[in-house]
Amino acid sequence: MEIIDIKRSIYEDNDAEAEALRKRLLGEKTFLLNLMSSPGAGKTSVLKRLVTAMKDELSIGIMEADIDSDVDAIKLADCGVEVIQLHTGGMCHLDAGMTAQGLSHLKEKHDLVVLENVGNLVCPAEFDTGASANAMILSVPEGDDKPLKYPLMFEVCNLVLINKIDTAGVFDFDMEKARENIQMRNENARIIPVSAKTGEGMEEFFEWIRQRVLQ
Amino acid sequence: MEIIDIKRSIYEDNDAEAEALRKRLLGEKTFLLNLMSSPGAGKTSVLKRLVTAMKDELSIGIMEADIDSDVDAIKLADCGVEVIQLHTGGMCHLDAGMTAQGLSHLKEKHDLVVLENVGNLVCPAEFDTGASANAMILSVPEGDDKPLKYPLMFEVCNLVLINKIDTAGVFDFDMEKARENIQMRNENARIIPVSAKTGEGMEEFFEWIRQRVLQ
Repeated sequence: MEIIDIKRSIYEDNDAEAEALRKRLLGEKTFLLNLMSSPGAGKTSVLKRLVTAMKDELSIGIMEADIDSDVDAIKLADCGVEVIQLHTGGMCHLDAGMTAQGLSHLKEKHDLVVLENVGNLVCPAEFDTGASANAMILSVPEGDDKPLKYPLMFEVCNLVLINKIDTAGVFDFDMEKARENIQMRNENARIIPVSAKTGEGMEEFFEWIRQRVLQ
Repeated sequence: MEIIDIKRSIYEDNDAEAEALRKRLLGEKTFLLNLMSSPGAGKTSVLKRLVTAMKDELSIGIMEADIDSDVDAIKLADCGVEVIQLHTGGMCHLDAGMTAQGLSHLKEKHDLVVLENVGNLVCPAEFDTGASANAMILSVPEGDDKPLKYPLMFEVCNLVLINKIDTAGVFDFDMEKARENIQMRNENARIIPVSAKTGEGMEEFFEWIRQRVLQ
């Protein structure tokens, strides 16, 4: 498995570069999903479910971005899809230039590429990666108040997966309150409660992907 | 309760300013603890336990730093200690200048001041706040591999609280593996497993505080 050291973009205008990348990907019929969350919310586990379920109907590439380590890429390496590890060199987020660098290292053309961003609810939301859509995972143990505290993350996401719903019994997580708080930040965000552990709700997520991938 | 908008420091040399602040606090016999973690790891719940247990033996001040909202400060407001809310204006961390601004708004002199930093395992670790010590909370639902993925956070912390141990039964969290991973990053870090929910392990944390506060 390849590990790529990506560098901070030399371009000053990240928004323009992000728009150009998004347009290019549309032309190439590649749907790029930027997946964000806190550390440990379950990005890799959700992706494992996704590639296992959808790899026969879609060509899928995964870009695992981390400050250090290749823990996540190793977890996905035996899933039968192309996985590359991006090292951000200490950077807390990816911008469009860094995302494009990562894409250039994928050996195949894919219908769906998922960028697993650095685990962080603050900085990744501030930089448009050029992705076709943004998704974030809020996990039940984190609490239903996170949209109040990290507003921008919820504002920029088209999809919010509420993960670890199998553990709802041991946490004070109010699903209705969570929905209200997310919708207060972003009334258009699609909200799907899931459990990457049991598989509950995942089919709805796969259908959301299906409707967006251009084959 | 006061809400203070703090601004990015005008000083270029954060390390020098942090050293100066640390020295000043030592002279004033105020122990400043910089408390960091992922979003939702339990910083506020741990603090609630701390102030409830220790407010009769120590004068305690709390500075709640958030990008937005005053959710945490409200949770602590009825605990009988001085609590102020710092708004970082979108910033993902606090530096020494921002911390000093916050301290200047505390109305009383305290034996112990806790800075609840922005929920983020990346950026807060990169900026010395001038605190007397750094502590971080790793919560069981996040997983035992976090020291591999967020190395600097574990390198800079004197204390790691492993929180939510009451939920260990529903997560694949290996406590020995977690200890090994933390010690690989920082062999001097004190590790205390706790549950802010049940109170388990908290007395050991309070004793750690007692040994450091200069009265």
